[in-house]
Amino acid sequence: MSHPPLHDPDRYPRLQLRLYLGPDVWIGPGKADLLELIGQTGSISEAGRRMGMSYKRAWSLVDGLNRSFAAPLVSSERGGAGGGGAALTPQGHEVLTRFRRIEAAAHDAASADMTAIQALHAAKRGR
Amino acid sequence: MSHPPLHDPDRYPRLQLRLYLGPDVWIGPGKADLLELIGQTGSISEAGRRMGMSYKRAWSLVDGLNRSFAAPLVSSERGGAGGGGAALTPQGHEVLTRFRRIEAAAHDAASADMTAIQALHAAKRGR
Repeated sequence: MSHPPLHDPDRYPRLQLRLYLGPDVWIGPGKADLLELIGQTGSISEAGRRMGMSYKRAWSLVDGLNRSFAAPLVSSERGGAGGGGAALTPQGHEVLTRFRRIEAAAHDAASADMTAIQALHAAKRGR
Repeated sequence: MSHPPLHDPDRYPRLQLRLYLGPDVWIGPGKADLLELIGQTGSISEAGRRMGMSYKRAWSLVDGLNRSFAAPLVSSERGGAGGGGAALTPQGHEVLTRFRRIEAAAHDAASADMTAIQALHAAKRGR
């Protein structure tokens, strides 16, 4: 099953945000989408599949996130392919919700300047 | 001569923003810093050197920016090593100023949620 992007990547101008919490610790659109899809599907493997990544890659990202926070963001049960379920913990919900609010607030606050820069670019495209 | 980072990369939480104007056209902190240093030094090669990049790399980034906009962001005179000068055009000043305002506005608008996510991370570090 194909899956439309959660946040339209063809919209311009568009901000892409990474929130750095430490030198090697950040949350960006990819990890946020993965958390959101885990919440929606209840499955790390399915969430990863919809983003075109391997189970190993998806699990590694989840493991990294879980290790970076005081409490895990994703809880999961053991299980092989097709087995085991996953869910966002309250902390996972909080991080995801706040990251989406950061994205929305940044776009709102930057909207006028983004449009002005886009106009200097679009003038080129129109020629 | 060593050069302190223009925008402290050791400050956390910190947003890193990319403004996408098209599928392969964006401005991020690296290009913004390069524009800023060209404005300060009057030299593409010196600006690149302070960022630890080759002249070829710096020139390629400037060329890409110039081609992406209706009017060039950087004007430069011919000249070999040590020769020729460079400066931001009015459009270059405008893009840089607006990008910095986008960064500042995004940080301000997102501050409370950034701090809350950082707290969930910092709790881990404190243990």
